[in-house]
Amino acid sequence: MHKGRLEAFSDGVMAIIITIMVLELKVPHGETLGALWPLWPVFLSYVLSFAYVGTYWTNHHHLMQAANRVTSQVLMANLNLLFWLSLLPFTTGWMGENHFAQGPVTLYGANLLASALSYYILQGQIVSAHDQDQSFRAALGSDLKGKRSLLAYVLGTLAALAGWPMVGFAIFCAVALVWLIPDRRMEMVVSARSKTSG
Amino acid sequence: MHKGRLEAFSDGVMAIIITIMVLELKVPHGETLGALWPLWPVFLSYVLSFAYVGTYWTNHHHLMQAANRVTSQVLMANLNLLFWLSLLPFTTGWMGENHFAQGPVTLYGANLLASALSYYILQGQIVSAHDQDQSFRAALGSDLKGKRSLLAYVLGTLAALAGWPMVGFAIFCAVALVWLIPDRRMEMVVSARSKTSG
Amino acid sequence: MHKGRLEAFSDGVMAIIITIMVLELKVPHGETLGALWPLWPVFLSYVLSFAYVGTYWTNHHHLMQAANRVTSQVLMANLNLLFWLSLLPFTTGWMGENHFAQGPVTLYGANLLASALSYYILQGQIVSAHDQDQSFRAALGSDLKGKRSLLAYVLGTLAALAGWPMVGFAIFCAVALVWLIPDRRMEMVVSARSKTSG
Amino acid sequence: MHKGRLEAFSDGVMAIIITIMVLELKVPHGETLGALWPLWPVFLSYVLSFAYVGTYWTNHHHLMQAANRVTSQVLMANLNLLFWLSLLPFTTGWMGENHFAQGPVTLYGANLLASALSYYILQGQIVSAHDQDQSFRAALGSDLKGKRSLLAYVLGTLAALAGWPMVGFAIFCAVALVWLIPDRRMEMVVSARSKTSG
Repeated sequence: MHKGRLEAFSDGVMAIIITIMVLELKVPHGETLGALWPLWPVFLSYVLSFAYVGTYWTNHHHLMQAANRVTSQVLMANLNLLFWLSLLPFTTGWMGENHFAQGPVTLYGANLLASALSYYILQGQIVSAHDQDQSFRAALGSDLKGKRSLLAYVLGTLAALAGWPMVGFAIFCAVALVWLIPDRRMEMVVSARSKTSG
Repeated sequence: MHKGRLEAFSDGVMAIIITIMVLELKVPHGETLGALWPLWPVFLSYVLSFAYVGTYWTNHHHLMQAANRVTSQVLMANLNLLFWLSLLPFTTGWMGENHFAQGPVTLYGANLLASALSYYILQGQIVSAHDQDQSFRAALGSDLKGKRSLLAYVLGTLAALAGWPMVGFAIFCAVALVWLIPDRRMEMVVSARSKTSG
Repeated sequence: MHKGRLEAFSDGVMAIIITIMVLELKVPHGETLGALWPLWPVFLSYVLSFAYVGTYWTNHHHLMQAANRVTSQVLMANLNLLFWLSLLPFTTGWMGENHFAQGPVTLYGANLLASALSYYILQGQIVSAHDQDQSFRAALGSDLKGKRSLLAYVLGTLAALAGWPMVGFAIFCAVALVWLIPDRRMEMVVSARSKTSG
Repeated sequence: MHKGRLEAFSDGVMAIIITIMVLELKVPHGETLGALWPLWPVFLSYVLSFAYVGTYWTNHHHLMQAANRVTSQVLMANLNLLFWLSLLPFTTGWMGENHFAQGPVTLYGANLLASALSYYILQGQIVSAHDQDQSFRAALGSDLKGKRSLLAYVLGTLAALAGWPMVGFAIFCAVALVWLIPDRRMEMVVSARSKTSG
């Protein structure tokens, strides 16, 4: 099965998610630059979610580039990931409109956690579709960055739930910053393969 | 005629349909997690329609992968399918905002029925474009799953019309669950062909 | 210059235009099937515009498939076409909400006319990029269907302007129906070429 | 690393940006053609931004066509460009609804400036990914048009900030007009290469 349409559909959905989030930035009523000021929590939430969706797109790009086989299980796991990402415009909008209050930050953290777990499931399905390809699994390595992110999402969500939403929000911003340095592991599989075949 | 742009356009339309449905999930006014509770019917409707559009995308992917020829009739049948799918954000939103009342569930069922019939017409047009390719028609087989789904949509719509909308809704959820196990028939044509050519 | 990205971008824009038009179909407040009745002009306008955008996509598909060269002038002419098509959700929405009143139908006709003229400009730019390819220009032939459509848009717009908007609307519906039978001219160039090269 | 998905994702995001801007053109309440008149600032803003996004897409197309290598830095620089472009629907809407008042035109100019700087960063990352390819850097040449545009954005933004928003707006329109004549530099690299390889 070819991976081309899976990539095209995922690109489409992620492109739309990243773009419709800006619709939450409602045009202010005033016409002075000062009228923009009350929008800062919505804007900051947008920046954060743009970084997350952009990171998911980049990692998805690397993961699929390394993959050769797409099974039905991979299609389902991919739809599952897209589902959780599609909720980001909603959770982002709620967080921005409520100035990082407890409830919305908790929900946002839960959304990040569900997305990350879905990404793991997708990665697992791709690994099991390549079970005779040792280089693929090896390339994933210990995946410390991914595991630490999961832990960070759990901690941030719990912090928000416990009444410190700003702590949770700061953790989510920190994780986003860490991921903006993209994942080079998958690039290595691809370059290793092209060396082998060359 | 190449099938690449047909796939790209269909991917685009289905990606947008699946994503703009989330715009019906309006950001709640409260800032507590409890403020999310009234959203459950809208959320549940979104999940159901996400599953349906995801399933249509997956089946469309398999169907087009098995196809070699795209005729003008196939283009028209594909636009017809996309038209009915494009109404899903509307019928989903109406169903969610009215807590699965009789009218909206009836309309939702009619939308599912029209989409399924359109998919059959598309499949028929592709079969007739491959009339010298016995493996294609054979691969479709008796298509019990598809026929049973059509029957289920009719029953669910009639149940809603008769005053039992929750019965109809339960039937639509059950069909969605059945389809989340993807269609392996088309995969078999492709693998059969690659065996023959290999 | 490759035509792949021109096709992909045009597919994207047309897919979004065709899908966001459905956002004008606002969820009704009532929960009975009767609450749908007041939506008929919006729905009918949506069906008509879906048919038009679908037809433009189909014809664009055929035109670009026959094309081998993409020049800067072609890119500009293509953006110009996409601009006029992008106004269709606006003009469609206005027409639907005002029950085919004089002003909106006139504007809708003007939009169809501008789109058709833009398509002619694009076709002309592609022809001049293929000026040594006789088969391309020959394949376009006398293009009676296209010329008659332009005339029909002018007549329909004038009829609306003169106070008979329903006559204009009926003309636009008739043209849409005629175009749903897709353009086979471009298919002939492609098949003629493949015969020559084969 | 292949550039195909980078192009597909960028096409998707730019296609959505260019299309959702039309959602700011709200359907007027009246049904006469005169009811359209108050929309002219929103419409004019839409035309201007459509021209800008169309120009960015065209230049992006040329730049990526000339590129052979995509690094992680290029992916990040591309996401950065898409981020600033994604704010255009917001800044365009604010400018249109306030009839080119001081604050909105200043913000619009700042948005154009940030987008242009991001494009320069992307171009720089692509150049450094091709550091052994002299023809690429040579093809960019002195890039007078790009540098003059940056200067014009600065001047326009300062003019608006100083209390002459219409001067700023006129400058932004003038730059858009200049760019509608597309960039032929990149085409030359491609054709030079194909001559060398042929």
